[in-house]
Parts: sequence; structure tokens; C-alpha cells
Amino acid sequence: MAATASFVRERLAEYGAASQARMKEYLRGGRAHEGFDALVADYPERGGRSLRASLCLATARAFGARPSEALNSAVALELLHNAFLVHDDVEDESEARRGSPTLHLRHGVPIAVNVGDALAVLSLRPLIENVEALGSRLALRVLEEAERMARESVEGQALELWWRQHNVIELGEADYLRMVLKKTCWYSTIYPLRVGALIGTRDGVGLDRYLRFGFFVGAAFQIQDDLLNLVGDEARYGKEINGDILEGKRTLMLIHLLGAANAEERVLLSRMLGSPRAARTLEDIRWVRERMDRYGSIEYARQVAHGLAGAALHEFSLAYGDLPDSPDKRFIEALPTWVLERT
Amino acid sequence: MAATASFVRERLAEYGAASQARMKEYLRGGRAHEGFDALVADYPERGGRSLRASLCLATARAFGARPSEALNSAVALELLHNAFLVHDDVEDESEARRGSPTLHLRHGVPIAVNVGDALAVLSLRPLIENVEALGSRLALRVLEEAERMARESVEGQALELWWRQHNVIELGEADYLRMVLKKTCWYSTIYPLRVGALIGTRDGVGLDRYLRFGFFVGAAFQIQDDLLNLVGDEARYGKEINGDILEGKRTLMLIHLLGAANAEERVLLSRMLGSPRAARTLEDIRWVRERMDRYGSIEYARQVAHGLAGAALHEFSLAYGDLPDSPDKRFIEALPTWVLERT
Repeated sequence: MAATASFVRERLAEYGAASQARMKEYLRGGRAHEGFDALVADYPERGGRSLRASLCLATARAFGARPSEALNSAVALELLHNAFLVHDDVEDESEARRGSPTLHLRHGVPIAVNVGDALAVLSLRPLIENVEALGSRLALRVLEEAERMARESVEGQALELWWRQHNVIELGEADYLRMVLKKTCWYSTIYPLRVGALIGTRDGVGLDRYLRFGFFVGAAFQIQDDLLNLVGDEARYGKEINGDILEGKRTLMLIHLLGAANAEERVLLSRMLGSPRAARTLEDIRWVRERMDRYGSIEYARQVAHGLAGAALHEFSLAYGDLPDSPDKRFIEALPTWVLERT
Repeated sequence: MAATASFVRERLAEYGAASQARMKEYLRGGRAHEGFDALVADYPERGGRSLRASLCLATARAFGARPSEALNSAVALELLHNAFLVHDDVEDESEARRGSPTLHLRHGVPIAVNVGDALAVLSLRPLIENVEALGSRLALRVLEEAERMARESVEGQALELWWRQHNVIELGEADYLRMVLKKTCWYSTIYPLRVGALIGTRDGVGLDRYLRFGFFVGAAFQIQDDLLNLVGDEARYGKEINGDILEGKRTLMLIHLLGAANAEERVLLSRMLGSPRAARTLEDIRWVRERMDRYGSIEYARQVAHGLAGAALHEFSLAYGDLPDSPDKRFIEALPTWVLERT
């Protein structure tokens, strides 16, 4: 167990160092004005574990690609990830990101929207420059995948916003998983793995299996992330504990609670979720949290995450099983276990 | 004069019809949920004159391209234009767009940020599908140009936001023109013309001359647009009259006034521009407007626009002069005059 964590940490550090070094080149100034350069570099420089870049680099290398061949695609993904974070923080009215105030809290919504756009635009450049290392055909295939991924991501975000805006509470596990597939898995796991395989095999393998493996491991990851928001350590986690309840986020735990609660509690929950964020009190949040414990919502979500991680391990053997042993392959194999164990 | 206006209107209608028909295909549903499809289609369906698509289609055709060859690039541009409008309206706290309330006023900032992202992502697809009609090499060249254009645009927006956020008032004509070059001209004129020429000549012509022609005609267009915000007819114009003053927008007229005003007026202007938008009264706006008249700021801006349009006509002869006569070529030639005359 501890061995898994330290092995994954080691690999993440190596992939992350490579992608962050390259990312710095893309973040180098020369834009509109000095202040803008600093704003654009703010989130990327707050760190993060470069998980998405690592999945892409590891898969490409597991298939025999040279380390440099997937680097541009990995960097593009990290830039886009930061673009999403900036806009998501605005949309979710989040207050902290990676241990510091969110960009829009520091500089206002107008600047944050613009900086998110700038990061998204910046993510295009390494993909276009892919032509040099990969040739036109493969570079265009990666762009095709990127377009699909970006589309799924904004649709997933739209779905979640819609639920919140219209105070939708008639939701089941299938709704939750569809939202997470689109909002989180496509860009966090599915796309990095697909592009890694695309580059590693020179477009020589079917990509559906990466959709499945990526979905299982990505959904387990998201549920675990939401669990950490309830039971984690704020200093290590970097966001407000119970912030998801405050934001009215439809987590699997909340959806379970909505299904398990009695009629009276459901009315209270619906009223609380339908009120503006500022009207929710600490008392409300404690009440929700206590009901989640009482109805076993947290334990239930843990079990779903475990089931998904198990399915991911099975898919791993189909998608990666034939490849020769390598640290890159072992890194991918370790992920389903690592996802459940991280704190 | 009237002949110019009706000829341009006719051509715009033809180019616009082609690009809007194709745009509808890209806006067709199948996304996250029904409500989302309607939100994404909202701004595009409010109409507009498809000026950007028209510039692209006309230039490509003037160089002998088949009508269909530049259509995807034209549609991508209109989608991105709508993405920019949604985010710009959030960033500028605008209240009306094309005669109706802005998207964020109707649905809130979170949804508007997401819908703007969705439109930007949607604009990628026709560019990737360019491969079918243009081949990989040329499709990638168009993508390269698109990346440059998008970068210039967000940087231009960043510059303007910075001026407002930090209440910068030490600005001259050169600062204004640099901002307009980046924020408006690159995506409204320079890029459409460059991509039209790229496709029409199969990457067979230098693109610098389109930068100059596009800048001159685009800057004249923007100044005229800002003038209409002061002296236009609200019903035809579709935005609030004097809305720019309310927003603290650094127009050429405001920059001229800041330079011409006496010390006392300058202090008052700076204080007003530095206060929150909600603190600006109708009385403030009338005062600014009256000072613009007194110091000839409006007449000055009109003269700059005329000078730019003249320069555009000269550049036209260099960039398009050798081409055989066609309605497409005549349309481009008519633009500098049309820009000054539209109401």
C-alpha cells in the first residue's frame, strides 16, 4: 500500500517535472502587458501533481514512444486544465484553489474570465506545434481528440450548472456517473490515455478501451476527491472542507442522501439547495453532513469508488496487458489502487 | 454613397446566408441537455450581419476559391465571435446585445461563462473538418492563423480590462490603436482576410499586406462603432446609447478628452472612471458627453477614422489590385467607404 503511494509519487514527480519545464516555455511573457503574464501564470505556478500530463506521457511511453513525443500534448492538457479551473472557480463561486484565494476573488470576475480564455487559447499552441514531432496526420488526430474532449468537458460543466441553477434533486447514480464521465473523466483520464495511445502506437490501436479504463479510474478518482472534501485535511487538500456542500454540488454522497432521506428532510434539503449560497449557514452544512453519516451516504460512495477501481483494474489488463513491463506501465496499473488510498 | 451601402448590404446578405445556414448545422443539438442547446444558440440566432464570415468568403472567392472552400473557416469565425461576445458582455457588465438583454443578465454569470466556452470549443470543429476540403497542410495553416488570432484577441481584451481595472488614464492615440489592433482588428478583419487569401491562393501569397489593410479598415470600423454608441439610434444599434461612457470604456473620444481637458476636469474624469459602474450617474454621463462636444473629441475621432479608411483604400490597391474584377473584389473595395457611412 505505502509502496504503491511512493512509487506513484515518484513517477508523478518525474512526468510532472518534464511537463512543467516545458509549460514554463509556453507561459513565458511577451503578451499584452507584464501584469497579464503574471495572471496567466498564476494557477499553473501554484503547482499541482500534473496527473493528466502524467497519464498521457506514461501511456505513450508504455507503448514505446520517445519521452519527447507526447510532451506537447501533455503540456496542452495541463494548460487547458488550468483554464478550466479558473472558469470553474468563477462558475462555482469557489474561494480557495491550491491553498490560496481563487483568481476571481483576488482580481474580479472580468479578469478571471479573460485569464481562463487566455489559458485555453495558449493550450492550442503546443497542439499545433505537434506537427514538428508527429507529422500533420497524427497532429490532426490529436486535435480531433482534443476537440471532442473539450466539448465533453463544457457539456459536463453545463449539466452540473443546470442542476444547481434549477435546483434539480431527482437524480440517481446513473445521472451522476454521466455527468462525471463528461465533466471530469474525459479530460482528466480518458483523453490523456487516448492521446498517449494514439502517439505511442502512431494511431495503430482502437481507442474505446481507453474510454472504459479512463472512465472507471476517473470516476473513482472524482468520488474519492469529493469524499476528501468531506473528511480530508484542509491544509493538505487545498480547498475548503465541506465547500462542496456549501456550493450545493451534486456529489454522489448528496445524491445518495437525497434518495435515502425521509420526506421532511428532503424538503429541507431541497429548500437549502435552492437558496443562494450566501444564505446557507454553517449550521445547515453540519446538518447535511450529519445526515450523510446517519444514512451511510459516505460509506455508500466509498463502496462505489471501490467497485469502479476494481473495474478499472480489469480494463487495465485488456488495454495494457500485452505491453512489455516498464515503469510507465506499472504506473498506470497502480492508479486504481492509488486513487482509493490518497488522502 | 447610397449605392455603396446597398451593394455592401446585398453582398453581406449573400455571404451571411451561406455562413448562417452552415452554422445552424454546428449548432444542432445533441449536447448535455435541451436547455443547453438553446443557450448556446442564443447569441448566434440573434442575427448580426456576418461581417467577419463575409470578409473571409469574399477574399477567398476574389482569389478564385470555390464558395464552399472557405465556408468552414467563416463559420468557425462567427462561432468564435459569438463566444467573445458572451464573455465580453460578462467582463464589461453590458446589459444589452443585439436588442435583447445580455446572456449573463438573463441566466447569470456562471451559465454565461460556460456558454461562451461552449461556443469557443464549437468553433474548433469546422476548422478540424477543414481537412476534408483543404487537405491537412492547408487546414493546419488555417489553425495556426486561428491560434494567433485568438491569442491577439484575448490579449487585446486583457489590455482594455487592465486599463479599466487600474483606472489608467495616461493614454494616447498609439495606445488606443495598439489595443484595437489586438482586440478588434485581428479577429474582425485581419484574420478573415488572411485566411481567405490563404485558402484562395493555397498558401501562395504573403499575408503581411492583409495585416495592414485589415488593421486600417478594422480600426476605422471600431472608431465608427464607438461613435455610433454616442450619436447613434438605440433601436438600430442594439446596445445602450452612451453605454461605453457608463462602462468606462477607453474609446478614442474619451482618450482625446482626457488629453484635452483642463486639470480640474481631468481630476473629475479620473474620479468618475475610477468609481464602480453603479456609482456613475446619468448626470456624470451627460457631463462627459457635453465635454466631448466642447473639446471636439467626436470630430477628432471622425477625422482619425477617415484617415484610416483612406489608408485602407491605398492598401486595398496593393493587396487586391491585381485580381480580376468580381463582386467579391468590389465588396472588399467598398468596405472602407461603407464603414464610415453606416449608421
